[in-house]
Amino acid sequence: MRRMPTPAFDPERFRREARAVVDWIADYWRTLEPRPVRSQVAPGDVRAQLPPHAPNEPEPLSAVLADLDRVIVPGLTHWQHPAFFAYFPASTSGPSILGELLAAGLGVQGMLWSTSPACTELETHVLDWLRELLGLPERFASSGVGGGVIHDSASSGLLCALVAARERATHLQSNRHGLAQTERPLVAYASAAAHSSFDKGARIAGLGDAWARRIAVDARGRMDPGALAAAMDADLAAGRVPCFVCATVGTTASGAIDPVPEIAAVVARHGAWLHVDAAWAGAAALCPELRPPLVAGAEAADSWGFNPHKWLLVNFDCHALWVADRTWLVQALATRPDYLRNAATDSGGVVDYAEWQVPLGRRFRALKLWLTLRMLGAEAIRGRIRAHVAWAGEFASWVAADPRFELLAQPSLSLVCFGLRAGDAASRRLLDRLNAGGTAFLSQATVGDRFALRLAVGAALTERRHVEAVWAEFSRLAAEAAQSA
Amino acid sequence: MRRMPTPAFDPERFRREARAVVDWIADYWRTLEPRPVRSQVAPGDVRAQLPPHAPNEPEPLSAVLADLDRVIVPGLTHWQHPAFFAYFPASTSGPSILGELLAAGLGVQGMLWSTSPACTELETHVLDWLRELLGLPERFASSGVGGGVIHDSASSGLLCALVAARERATHLQSNRHGLAQTERPLVAYASAAAHSSFDKGARIAGLGDAWARRIAVDARGRMDPGALAAAMDADLAAGRVPCFVCATVGTTASGAIDPVPEIAAVVARHGAWLHVDAAWAGAAALCPELRPPLVAGAEAADSWGFNPHKWLLVNFDCHALWVADRTWLVQALATRPDYLRNAATDSGGVVDYAEWQVPLGRRFRALKLWLTLRMLGAEAIRGRIRAHVAWAGEFASWVAADPRFELLAQPSLSLVCFGLRAGDAASRRLLDRLNAGGTAFLSQATVGDRFALRLAVGAALTERRHVEAVWAEFSRLAAEAAQSA
Repeated sequence: MRRMPTPAFDPERFRREARAVVDWIADYWRTLEPRPVRSQVAPGDVRAQLPPHAPNEPEPLSAVLADLDRVIVPGLTHWQHPAFFAYFPASTSGPSILGELLAAGLGVQGMLWSTSPACTELETHVLDWLRELLGLPERFASSGVGGGVIHDSASSGLLCALVAARERATHLQSNRHGLAQTERPLVAYASAAAHSSFDKGARIAGLGDAWARRIAVDARGRMDPGALAAAMDADLAAGRVPCFVCATVGTTASGAIDPVPEIAAVVARHGAWLHVDAAWAGAAALCPELRPPLVAGAEAADSWGFNPHKWLLVNFDCHALWVADRTWLVQALATRPDYLRNAATDSGGVVDYAEWQVPLGRRFRALKLWLTLRMLGAEAIRGRIRAHVAWAGEFASWVAADPRFELLAQPSLSLVCFGLRAGDAASRRLLDRLNAGGTAFLSQATVGDRFALRLAVGAALTERRHVEAVWAEFSRLAAEAAQSA
Repeated sequence: MRRMPTPAFDPERFRREARAVVDWIADYWRTLEPRPVRSQVAPGDVRAQLPPHAPNEPEPLSAVLADLDRVIVPGLTHWQHPAFFAYFPASTSGPSILGELLAAGLGVQGMLWSTSPACTELETHVLDWLRELLGLPERFASSGVGGGVIHDSASSGLLCALVAARERATHLQSNRHGLAQTERPLVAYASAAAHSSFDKGARIAGLGDAWARRIAVDARGRMDPGALAAAMDADLAAGRVPCFVCATVGTTASGAIDPVPEIAAVVARHGAWLHVDAAWAGAAALCPELRPPLVAGAEAADSWGFNPHKWLLVNFDCHALWVADRTWLVQALATRPDYLRNAATDSGGVVDYAEWQVPLGRRFRALKLWLTLRMLGAEAIRGRIRAHVAWAGEFASWVAADPRFELLAQPSLSLVCFGLRAGDAASRRLLDRLNAGGTAFLSQATVGDRFALRLAVGAALTERRHVEAVWAEFSRLAAEAAQSA
């Protein structure tokens, strides 16, 4: 007979060690500002400092925290740094971290309603709250046939929407018989400026690049609804099935907002599925004055998604996806093996979120959304979004007023795309110098045919002075470059 | 000009509030035992207690914790309860929770090596450690062309392996042109007892149910390699392309282990992709004496996955997937938009894990695996696995010795399938009564054509006395049922 081995969870030890970790995190945040934003390690530097084999015997937390400081932290690009302006910031907050901690501490599974009912019901409820906060149409509310769900990312949300669209278009025959040997290819559409998750989703779902069409954009990066209509009509005429259209509200490169109402009208003529990818910009719909262009046309969308983990102060991963008719997701993705059978599912009266996503298991992610909304309150979140938009506007005005620089797109919410008038090569060198300096970090995009520097304001610790400082640094580096030229 | 809004992260407030949350979690674990394991709420009970609208103004943590106690906890099925024996337990541990907390606190993104190098390098490194600990073949080590990656779940790992297999079989033409109009359908195979994620993956990837074949199993639930060979040969003869075979090491219903070496020989003849799904059982390969049947044939596998979040004391989500040749995953899943371009990716000398998975973003999940392995040490984890296997063996011997009960499958590691000799209806009633009582929670499966009760030992707090107690309860309920009959 075997004795109980070392406890995996000793509450008193956990209390002690978790306090040390909490202190470590608080100190990390307090000391973020002087650190170089972008990691300065070369490939292999981190691994070279790690032992080649896993330990057989326990090591104390102090040893792990020491390695965290010595090996790991120098290898991090600090996404929570106040001068992180790259990509779209993945902002977090104290309440959100507490929510993630609670989810880990509870360790429950929300794959089915029955496997932990509160996990499902809180998620449905908080996504109803959020729908209302964003001013999204009633059709996405769980009180009808729609509802919301948390995915890890916009890529996964788009994939599931696309698979649901595929099944709706083929009357579930794609699931039954697959796509091989079908005579009429299914076609998906997104703008030339849409996110790469569109291509990834179309590949995974078996449509392929050939039938994942990129539609032309106007000078401001917005999908041209006329070009979409022409493409869909041509596909129909050629015997193909226009199936899925992804409209982007806030493109990655420049924050362009597709004309969703006009796109919706085209989509409706074909009975295709309209998905709105508002991954970054969607959060701004929390502010009534910023809302109208962001939710316009949403009442015609079959699915609409955005990432609270980008700009709503909820730590990654948290993508909110709403669907107008949950039946299609469930019909596309449900498998009901004997070992998961339960009375609640059989009754048809509950939501089983495993049937709305790729994975089976799911952790209690609604907690971090719940804590963030309750402990910060909607108005404080709005205040932050408004501040970010205002600071980006100021930055854009400084760019516009400086003869060495030019705006490469109209600023969109908290995103500014700009470059040097001296040309793309000079802009590229400027970006490299700024990022190498370590005081701030930005990334780039192609806007039109230009190399654009992107300033994306949104990190949780960013203040106006950080935006001022990065502009001062750009200005200084541009002057340096002019002198050495 | 806008003033700085309420800070989203105030280190001192976080320190104070996180301590309260840590204490709440420690108290939750200390008081788990007297709670009913399975939630006793009815659909809608939780939501009925939540306010209809999100708060506009901040609420204190104390209000959230009060609602957690009042509304959420009664709605939970306690997966960390010591008498949780359902499904496969999703065990966690103190160190793992600390790792999750650190990941949330750091808030970095590991989508590309360049977006936070340590996030990628620690993951690669810890999966090399784990490969060695499990005794998996060298071909899965990152030093060659293989390597490991963390996915959220076995379902996602299988889907990505299947998409990689699809692209290998079609020389990347499925990605280019999609599956429509292809003359030769791709076919995937798994045993009749394989997990439902096989069907879900085959649907999402566009193969469809028709070409996702379920191969017959023997009396012990193991795939029949002869039947597999016959099916693959027949498909080839009929002009189809045998593409992907999923062998299961530890089926969900009864823990059966497919004969991977024999399956591998069949798969090799067809040049198909061999994926091994060891989601639950894989962890036991940590113990050399349990290892041989679990890793047999792995040297012929193209991909091999298991869930540290099941039996390795790492909290959900943490699926470890190894591939023998990472090129296929990358070729199948990589999209390289301008806005993610960076020198490290261009050099070809780094791993960008976004190209190994469905989502783009990824959090720093390697931390929880690192902390768990270091702070518990491999030997203590082995000790727990051995204890669970021993206790399950004892439970099985009690079942076998009781004339009212019978074993419905040979016990597999820590999983016991059993029922009442009085028949399936009686077993079903027994399970309902036990679960309604709240002192323990088990789930069911179909084994052969019988309704089986499954005792899956694996929760972090489980001790031998909990296994004894659930047997005593079964025995008491069976006696009660006999009297009332």
